Amino acid sequence: MGKLKIKKTPFTVPGFLFDGLHCGIKDQPRKKDLGVIYATEKETQIAGVFTQNKICAGPVRQCKANLKKAQGRLVVVNSGTANAATGKQGRLDAQDTAKQASQTFNLKTKDVFICSTGRIGERVPKKKIITGLEKMKPDAGKLWDFAEAICTTDQYCKVVTHKGKIAGKPFRIAIIAKGAGMICPNMATMLCYVVTDLNLSKMTAQKLLKESVDDSLNCLTVDGDTSTNDTTLLLASGLAKNKSLKTNSKNYEQIKAVLTKLLQQICEFITLDGEGATTCFRVHVSGAKNKKQAQVIAKAVGNSQLVKTAIFGCDPNWGRIICAAGYSGSDIVEEKTTVKIGSIPVFRKGKPLNANEKKASQYLKKNQLVDLHLEIGLGQGKAKVYSSDLTHGYVRFNAEYRT
Amino acid sequence: MGKLKIKKTPFTVPGFLFDGLHCGIKDQPRKKDLGVIYATEKETQIAGVFTQNKICAGPVRQCKANLKKAQGRLVVVNSGTANAATGKQGRLDAQDTAKQASQTFNLKTKDVFICSTGRIGERVPKKKIITGLEKMKPDAGKLWDFAEAICTTDQYCKVVTHKGKIAGKPFRIAIIAKGAGMICPNMATMLCYVVTDLNLSKMTAQKLLKESVDDSLNCLTVDGDTSTNDTTLLLASGLAKNKSLKTNSKNYEQIKAVLTKLLQQICEFITLDGEGATTCFRVHVSGAKNKKQAQVIAKAVGNSQLVKTAIFGCDPNWGRIICAAGYSGSDIVEEKTTVKIGSIPVFRKGKPLNANEKKASQYLKKNQLVDLHLEIGLGQGKAKVYSSDLTHGYVRFNAEYRT
Repeated sequence: MGKLKIKKTPFTVPGFLFDGLHCGIKDQPRKKDLGVIYATEKETQIAGVFTQNKICAGPVRQCKANLKKAQGRLVVVNSGTANAATGKQGRLDAQDTAKQASQTFNLKTKDVFICSTGRIGERVPKKKIITGLEKMKPDAGKLWDFAEAICTTDQYCKVVTHKGKIAGKPFRIAIIAKGAGMICPNMATMLCYVVTDLNLSKMTAQKLLKESVDDSLNCLTVDGDTSTNDTTLLLASGLAKNKSLKTNSKNYEQIKAVLTKLLQQICEFITLDGEGATTCFRVHVSGAKNKKQAQVIAKAVGNSQLVKTAIFGCDPNWGRIICAAGYSGSDIVEEKTTVKIGSIPVFRKGKPLNANEKKASQYLKKNQLVDLHLEIGLGQGKAKVYSSDLTHGYVRFNAEYRT
Repeated sequence: MGKLKIKKTPFTVPGFLFDGLHCGIKDQPRKKDLGVIYATEKETQIAGVFTQNKICAGPVRQCKANLKKAQGRLVVVNSGTANAATGKQGRLDAQDTAKQASQTFNLKTKDVFICSTGRIGERVPKKKIITGLEKMKPDAGKLWDFAEAICTTDQYCKVVTHKGKIAGKPFRIAIIAKGAGMICPNMATMLCYVVTDLNLSKMTAQKLLKESVDDSLNCLTVDGDTSTNDTTLLLASGLAKNKSLKTNSKNYEQIKAVLTKLLQQICEFITLDGEGATTCFRVHVSGAKNKKQAQVIAKAVGNSQLVKTAIFGCDPNWGRIICAAGYSGSDIVEEKTTVKIGSIPVFRKGKPLNANEKKASQYLKKNQLVDLHLEIGLGQGKAKVYSSDLTHGYVRFNAEYRT
């Protein structure tokens, strides 16, 4: 993939300080591998959504256990080792790190959230992390240091920012993420942090995050392998002083639309950085029986190895697309389905339009971000999934990485 | 993959004649692309199982429609074009071919079964097929000609045979298959034909086939993409003159065990011929809550791109294996799960056994057919899935094939 150029524009969010440094987990001495988000406000609300994988990492269990009763005062993230598949010891290590971090920062242990990303099956080096935490000098201007510290195989930092107004009050959102998708190798996981100065109740924050993630990060796939460590946290300092949002209000819907759009941008950044990816594609499904069925179709197409290799080969292979839709389990009828590559129809209601294939192939060759459309013709269900192609680079990376 | 050497040993099954020839669908003039199985006995029973893909091909619809009311007198298979995603026209073409074939062979149209395999989205050249059928000279000794005629991207023919005795009566089974798995590219599909002289009622034949396929072909995965054309037919001539099998009898269980084992051998042949495959692997799951859950885990591991690339890289990456089991949806608890590569434990009940990884890596390097074991420790559920590695060859084949 042509390296995406993201300008490291400074950005601050009232109520949040950041830092990132090298504490010694990664071999390369200058690579940052430890980051913190420190919330200055005692009443900072926190919400979270986590991997559905039943083998979930120690730090994920630590975050989940604390989420309901805690304020979000400190998030500690290490990269390089995932503390996953490390059993009871992994949980204890995460708890212990939280305890020691709470002493260093003079906070309650329950208000500290631990995240890890990196190789599966290794214990986390607690001493290095604690020594690292003692050296931290969190600052409102160090958002990009934190963004760097949480990266593993990422080729660039993933940050999106937004300034808006709600009922006349200005507010800010920054999202910092890492990862190459819902993948589960040694050195990759999706981590995502949303910090905002919005005034949100705990319940509203959780609902807002859940609903926004459902239409963004949960529609992301690089290889269909869901990580053991995937974590998204939202922290809200309340310093925007807006009237607390009611979940059935227009203002809530406005904020949700903003957050969803920002998280969708993160999705694009992550697929563009997918391991070995040369082309990213969005699968748009419309007219499915309902939203759930649309999502199932979109994911089947997005995850299909044969679609992914076809995209790599710039092959407008609509047969593979419709075939994946057919085995997805959702309702689909050949005679009612239309497939478009970009805006070019290649299959319309049971009839191949093979004359259009050349044009579709040129479209695939010309673009690094392409759109596949399936119109199912059975209802109103819509969904969008983000994916990337399956390439020699992917195979090389994942076959040769540890050897 | 080192080319598998299958000796083309002659084999006959009383009641069945075969032939295969080049009728002009494939470009290469000597490549056979049309085959028939002709049953001499009027009362030949037929049973079938088909793709679950909702976009299923014209010939699949033709077979399904006839199955219940027909005898199995003639099976016509063309390779080179799949007659899939061709809508209503595809169905009509398959029906028309059956009608014309029935005239050529002087049979009832309903007793003729049409199968196709090859590129999706092209109409089938009926004239070539009919002209080809007129040239056929079916013979008991031409089983291998039929086997050749149904191949597409296959590197070798897949045939297994068996001679046995049931209640003192000798019987024979031959299975002829093609394909590189449950894959759905332009030129691949799983087709499988079981011919036997056993005396089976229609109902028994259907139950026997369904149950045997569940533990064999349905446990096969190359890339998780289920074809639009997958078809398995069983034809039973009755010439073995055994007493008709009752489905709750010991004899039934004996035959089922034989058929399942033969079909499992076909699974190995197919994965060994998987597109681009260098290593095949079997995923053995035991101790799952029940059989269904065991199958779900085994399939998730067998389909995981990350497990498949790890196998290609001879990387004993148990983290990827347990991670795939974790997101499968079946119940699994880290602290109760053990993972073995071959006979070498690499993760035991929540504890990584990293010291064994070198040995496990050597095992993967030395063998072309390897075994992965997951012991779940929650119940009695068992399952086995056949898969192959994800390689540069696979990407090359599927990305560059049509371009």
